[in-house]
Amino acid sequence: MSKKLTSRAEDYSKWYNELVVKADLAENSAVRGCMVIKPYGYAIWEKMQDELDKMFKETGHQNAYFPLFVPKSLFEAEEKNAEGFAKECAVVTHYRLQNDPDNKGKLRVDPKAKLEEELVVRPTSEAIIWNTYRGWIQSYRDLPLLINQWANVVRWEMRTRLFLRTAEFLWQEGHTAHETKKEALAEAELMNDVYAKFAENFMAIPVIQGIKTESERFAGAEETYCIEALMQDGKALQAGTSHFLGQNFAKAFDVKFANKEGKQDYVWATSWGVSTRLMGALIMTHSDDNGLVLPPSLAPNQVVIVPIYKSEEDLEAITNVANTILSELRGKNITVKYDNRTTHRPGAKFAQHELQGVPLRIAIGARDLANGTVEIARRDTLTKEVVAMEGLSDKIEALLKTIQKDLFNKALDFRNNHITEVDNFDEFIEVLESKTGFVSAHWDGTAETEDKIKELTKATIRCIPLEGIEEMGDCVYTGNPSKRRVLFAKAY
Amino acid sequence: MSKKLTSRAEDYSKWYNELVVKADLAENSAVRGCMVIKPYGYAIWEKMQDELDKMFKETGHQNAYFPLFVPKSLFEAEEKNAEGFAKECAVVTHYRLQNDPDNKGKLRVDPKAKLEEELVVRPTSEAIIWNTYRGWIQSYRDLPLLINQWANVVRWEMRTRLFLRTAEFLWQEGHTAHETKKEALAEAELMNDVYAKFAENFMAIPVIQGIKTESERFAGAEETYCIEALMQDGKALQAGTSHFLGQNFAKAFDVKFANKEGKQDYVWATSWGVSTRLMGALIMTHSDDNGLVLPPSLAPNQVVIVPIYKSEEDLEAITNVANTILSELRGKNITVKYDNRTTHRPGAKFAQHELQGVPLRIAIGARDLANGTVEIARRDTLTKEVVAMEGLSDKIEALLKTIQKDLFNKALDFRNNHITEVDNFDEFIEVLESKTGFVSAHWDGTAETEDKIKELTKATIRCIPLEGIEEMGDCVYTGNPSKRRVLFAKAY
Repeated sequence: MSKKLTSRAEDYSKWYNELVVKADLAENSAVRGCMVIKPYGYAIWEKMQDELDKMFKETGHQNAYFPLFVPKSLFEAEEKNAEGFAKECAVVTHYRLQNDPDNKGKLRVDPKAKLEEELVVRPTSEAIIWNTYRGWIQSYRDLPLLINQWANVVRWEMRTRLFLRTAEFLWQEGHTAHETKKEALAEAELMNDVYAKFAENFMAIPVIQGIKTESERFAGAEETYCIEALMQDGKALQAGTSHFLGQNFAKAFDVKFANKEGKQDYVWATSWGVSTRLMGALIMTHSDDNGLVLPPSLAPNQVVIVPIYKSEEDLEAITNVANTILSELRGKNITVKYDNRTTHRPGAKFAQHELQGVPLRIAIGARDLANGTVEIARRDTLTKEVVAMEGLSDKIEALLKTIQKDLFNKALDFRNNHITEVDNFDEFIEVLESKTGFVSAHWDGTAETEDKIKELTKATIRCIPLEGIEEMGDCVYTGNPSKRRVLFAKAY
Repeated sequence: MSKKLTSRAEDYSKWYNELVVKADLAENSAVRGCMVIKPYGYAIWEKMQDELDKMFKETGHQNAYFPLFVPKSLFEAEEKNAEGFAKECAVVTHYRLQNDPDNKGKLRVDPKAKLEEELVVRPTSEAIIWNTYRGWIQSYRDLPLLINQWANVVRWEMRTRLFLRTAEFLWQEGHTAHETKKEALAEAELMNDVYAKFAENFMAIPVIQGIKTESERFAGAEETYCIEALMQDGKALQAGTSHFLGQNFAKAFDVKFANKEGKQDYVWATSWGVSTRLMGALIMTHSDDNGLVLPPSLAPNQVVIVPIYKSEEDLEAITNVANTILSELRGKNITVKYDNRTTHRPGAKFAQHELQGVPLRIAIGARDLANGTVEIARRDTLTKEVVAMEGLSDKIEALLKTIQKDLFNKALDFRNNHITEVDNFDEFIEVLESKTGFVSAHWDGTAETEDKIKELTKATIRCIPLEGIEEMGDCVYTGNPSKRRVLFAKAY
């Protein structure tokens, strides 16, 4: 298989698909719409999980685990949620296979092993969790209940793409219960903020925090907060959502508590999640025509050292130096790999590490040994420099921080250059057709206008930005009065 | 709900079920046979995962993720494996629900959304993984392939018990591919050894390593290694298994590689796993009539500090001292919680931490402040002592190590006292009926005898111990010649 990727300019979508496979991140499986996350891709996801998990725990949350299956009667209890997910549910109807009498060596579903009640494979876990919370919450002393779950979920999507939209995906889902509306709203905002911090500080992805319009809300939510990112092709990507669920699930599952005055009241709820979709956002924000570009914070290997040698003696001498560098870098908690494979030439190693986005590559040859130098190559800028061995680990440490910051700033500049304020619909269409990111425009607040614009342009309202300024204007489509601009874009 | 548990002597099984629920480890869910793992139970499982994951990575394994679903045609490809699991498979047959025209507000499976091919919810992942490995392995350079997956699996068990046997459970499954039979066997042994080390060093559970007889093997394996533990009621528990799969899966899924001589050959395989069942083993090995007893290595909180005060001033002074202790212990990487809840009295806190198995409890009262002392209580021995504040953190650190060792030794003594060598069948029955653990006896090596003994006594051959000594003898049942003793027991 050729390592050369289709360029982004040539075919962005093809570039993405090829990169995911060739950089060994994921591949399609034998199961329609389900992916295999390969070890290198999974290692990045594990780093994301570690950081997010730490942030959840620091904000007082605990992990737990709830069943994969939701009995149909529970699934349908909260109507809006059920309606939102019913069309894409994998349903277990039987609990046994048997030898197929008509096909030797084959199995078939045992018709006698039909379940009394069908089980839905969770597309999200509000139903099963709120049914459980009923037993956990009696009084205000049991609140707030702050729980997160790392799990797989299934949504039977018809059009799938690796990481971005798959029938099964991995995610975390927080589910919290509170005494008051105010506290639940504060929790939903807090967790959206945690997501924004994670995206910006670790993924180096600038995001816009906002709230969704009613038609873009999570099924069953009263308010959906989100973080929206912009990909290099000018399409937006919803990177995380945090929902204020009101008392909808508490009412559907009869979860009441005795408040401080001793009165019974329904509990207030939130839920929030990010998924392996973040991998797609990470790839599409930073990578280039040579392959993956990873921010140092999430790179499984932040540094790779490649020896360049002709003789066994050279290799031995280089390895001695490499070992010193390895131990110094590890002492600074920098992950580093010594790629001394004898099955591959240096050129092939360089190409692989470039394709896989290792932030820094150190090459050491015999001449370097003589000069007391090494060659450092930055993946993000594709620049090389020869530097002194002395003080190398400090230099590397500083460079990794610089790369992290540079990646964020580059993405921020791109994003900021791709938010266009428009005040008439011709311009709106023109900006969208030239694929240039977010369009900031006035909207009259009706679902009707939102739908019409979507129909005409394929653009949706990504969010009503939290930091938006009150500014009177006319709806870009109807001309009706509007109090603030919202962000439109075509989206993943 | 009363916190008092049924005693082990009264009803061991009831004691276990009550303990799991009252110590907030897990509970049954609305889904038949599926459990909810509560935050406290999940925190223990997370500690197990962390340690195991480290051990897997140190032995060269990487994590990855494969689909939850196995298409029926792949599932049935390896015949023995399919036969072994077909009877307990959850099967997805449809991918959509719709409004039920006969029942307003209810949903039903959409008959038009029937899958062309049924999907089995993975009971284990050999089939889907080996189908994937075909694309990953071409040459000896791609070997060994050392992969692990953390996942949920489903086996439709008819009789379930929290942690010990549930329809859905969490586990890890390693799946490796090798050039030679010898290497694959070595891998299977290595991972069984990793499991044994984990059980003994972290769970403080002594285990016997052995191999399974043919009838107790994993479906599709050519050899199954295992670690067997003994519970306090004298029943054995299989705590982990590691399988040498020969070339069975490689042949079923056509996974060949070019060896160093350039010839095509089938790959050799292993798989190995431990699950949330380990939680059951942990609970039943160490706990007592007062509740859970946890080895310090796996306790979410190794130490809890409880202030005992009458006035706000006392509390403030105690909190100052507690903060010093907290920071000293945390500096030693000891996990410690300051339980300053105002909603509970000290007695209630003591009872809760005892029930939940916190290894060490420190109580600080006003008199302690005056004397420069604290009271330390050990959960495992239920003993208390008053010790000087000075040098406290060193003392605590040493005590935690002592507790870890003492728990192991206690369990080891119990286990060793419950292995009985017997040489005739009357004695065999007598030992088993008095519920005293493993019976070491000669067996003629036939499945027929094994079945007969099982039928008569409910005891199975837990394993042929790896460390067993060659010793000629007569089969305890048939009198036929035998080369070594095997271990029988009733088992979970």
